[in-house]
Amino acid sequence: MIGTFLRKRTVRVGILGTGVVGATLGSKLIQIGHEVKMGSRSANNVKAIEWAQQNGANASFGTFADAAAFGEIVFNCTAGTVSLAALSSAGAGNLKGKVLVDVANPLDFSKGMPATLSVCNSDSLGEQIQRAFPNARVVKALNTMNCRVMVEPSLVPGEHDVFVCGNDPQAKARVEEVLKSFGWRSIIDLGDITAARGTEMILPIWLRLWSLSQNRHFNFRIAH
Amino acid sequence: MIGTFLRKRTVRVGILGTGVVGATLGSKLIQIGHEVKMGSRSANNVKAIEWAQQNGANASFGTFADAAAFGEIVFNCTAGTVSLAALSSAGAGNLKGKVLVDVANPLDFSKGMPATLSVCNSDSLGEQIQRAFPNARVVKALNTMNCRVMVEPSLVPGEHDVFVCGNDPQAKARVEEVLKSFGWRSIIDLGDITAARGTEMILPIWLRLWSLSQNRHFNFRIAH
Repeated sequence: MIGTFLRKRTVRVGILGTGVVGATLGSKLIQIGHEVKMGSRSANNVKAIEWAQQNGANASFGTFADAAAFGEIVFNCTAGTVSLAALSSAGAGNLKGKVLVDVANPLDFSKGMPATLSVCNSDSLGEQIQRAFPNARVVKALNTMNCRVMVEPSLVPGEHDVFVCGNDPQAKARVEEVLKSFGWRSIIDLGDITAARGTEMILPIWLRLWSLSQNRHFNFRIAH
Repeated sequence: MIGTFLRKRTVRVGILGTGVVGATLGSKLIQIGHEVKMGSRSANNVKAIEWAQQNGANASFGTFADAAAFGEIVFNCTAGTVSLAALSSAGAGNLKGKVLVDVANPLDFSKGMPATLSVCNSDSLGEQIQRAFPNARVVKALNTMNCRVMVEPSLVPGEHDVFVCGNDPQAKARVEEVLKSFGWRSIIDLGDITAARGTEMILPIWLRLWSLSQNRHFNFRIAH
């Protein structure tokens, strides 16, 4: 199954966010043959322009709304604490019916370290996004690892897992195709979007492990 | 190193709680040669009496205070939402200087499923216990798996991990000896007791994985 997403056809992807996560995912998607528009608050974000210049003819940039309108699949790669605002700028109409892959984590660094989550326990960012944009098909995925590992799982030796959850089975199947095209072999479907509580709440132990090892290239494996 | 805890000498252990976690840990500790007193709210708890009857001459029972006074090492195996009350009954004096292994999770099932945590994010049960009993040497451990796996890690195939955290290095070293005597080979020291936030907050994904698979014999592995 690896590579079916790639082999089928070129897909137009919108990336919301110009940080390292958005740039890394965007570059990988270009590399495997897709067209990517990176969106930000302004139409002329310097980081988005630089990223597009470095990634060739299939890379472009624009506003959040431009990127969301462009994508058949849209990745939310904004900081979790501003994701709802960014998605509002993108526009519910531009997200309608789209597969919206929520990669963000609601990490709040404003109260010092260790970071806390701005939403957790009885709710999650993934659920907030699905409630705010009921016509988008939200799939939470890839938020439990460093972005280099997201697009190159072989950076971590041995077996390890990526989690997906969401309310729409077809949208999850589409995201699983993308993940396989990135090289993922073990994809765990956790069910509906409420499972985003679980995947977002493993961030505190992720951050602790990272601070202890100073190595970002690790990941969770469910041994069973 | 496996078995050094066992080979060195018989240790007196207090188990707080008469549920399946306390009974499973208590029986294992008896099996490998230690003396265990199981404590509960009353001196004559039926489950504690039955457990002691089934576990031979090295098993006994009593109140929380009796068990805490008896143990050189004390395991908190009460439900997380009542742990502070149970430990108050055990008595700060009986816990003074003791290694207190906090196995509990602050799971709140009162609002329906999925369960939430009664404390999380900017605090944890492990930290609450350490603050309430500053003279106990709290080590959070074993709370991230089913109790059969706690005492028989080989139930889960392949490599997988147990986490420990706490403020007292000697107490953690003591707990690591106990874990090795249970068969644990990979023990990850997450640092001070604030890391209990991280290990308690992985319970929601644990519960989701369990509800999907109906298999309790799985565990986390940090692939790196």
